[in-house]
Amino acid sequence: MAVSTITSFVGGMAGSWTILSCTAMAGQPIVNAKKLNIMTGEFDNNNCNWILKGFKSNLRYTTKQEEEILDLNPSILGKPENNFAALIPIKKSEEWWLLAQDERRKILEEKSHHIEIGSRYLSPISRSLYHSRDIGEEFDFLTWFEFSENHIEKFNELAELLRKTEEWKYVIREVDIRLRK
Amino acid sequence: MAVSTITSFVGGMAGSWTILSCTAMAGQPIVNAKKLNIMTGEFDNNNCNWILKGFKSNLRYTTKQEEEILDLNPSILGKPENNFAALIPIKKSEEWWLLAQDERRKILEEKSHHIEIGSRYLSPISRSLYHSRDIGEEFDFLTWFEFSENHIEKFNELAELLRKTEEWKYVIREVDIRLRK
Repeated sequence: MAVSTITSFVGGMAGSWTILSCTAMAGQPIVNAKKLNIMTGEFDNNNCNWILKGFKSNLRYTTKQEEEILDLNPSILGKPENNFAALIPIKKSEEWWLLAQDERRKILEEKSHHIEIGSRYLSPISRSLYHSRDIGEEFDFLTWFEFSENHIEKFNELAELLRKTEEWKYVIREVDIRLRK
Repeated sequence: MAVSTITSFVGGMAGSWTILSCTAMAGQPIVNAKKLNIMTGEFDNNNCNWILKGFKSNLRYTTKQEEEILDLNPSILGKPENNFAALIPIKKSEEWWLLAQDERRKILEEKSHHIEIGSRYLSPISRSLYHSRDIGEEFDFLTWFEFSENHIEKFNELAELLRKTEEWKYVIREVDIRLRK
């Protein structure tokens, strides 16, 4: 059998990350959990509160020119000073998914500057995107962010900027989970 | 647990499709099998020769204008007259996957006319694309085509046209499996 490409974010009683808050920004909330465990592979565990699954993939909107800018500040996870994290699962509307590639790209970048906004914050705020929709999950994407205590405000600013964009009009469910290591 | 979005193409001794030929066009062949069974969900079956898995997804390169052309001839699978089929698993090189979205789009359509070539054959040749790379499979994509006996030559023409494109220079493994219902 193939090596699993799936990452499971397991919310429950165990894990190296403590959940500080879990806020529904749009749509249904998820139940509270105390700790988060990040595991490689797929799990079905009755001893936890929830499991959110996703896989990393190739970049689906970024142009060569944008990639070159992103590459100047590679996103490095697991830095010892980055003791704070955010896990943000989102689901977009059917209207979004019925758009063609060029229409989605136009909203995401030309109108909402998603890639450009993210790249501005890249050095202090590391992140990794997981795709969930293709494997039948409740959410379409999970984004995992890591930052230091000094950059919590910076992260809040980034999240606020993105939530004001045209792209976010297509977000029908979003949960903002904050964590400390 | 979420409803599985995975389709399993199971090559073995059972199934409604008889495998007529199984030809490696590039890279390693796959072992022969007599029959093909198409199942929803993931299976690990020791009684078969191989299982190829993939999921359907949103279109990742098609523009609005191209979608409108494709929509004129919707691809309908399971037509009773379409007793012939082809299953074509392909794997692209790391070089392909390291390209940015705009570079891949340029090779796929502006230089290779992949979408335009496919749409020209759409009415007699129905097809469905499954993504496999993101779930750690050996191949990156599986394409399933259905057509009538009268259109076998037409399908061969389509396959030959695509294999001559610049996009196909990035194909490092391809198997052409032909079937009859």
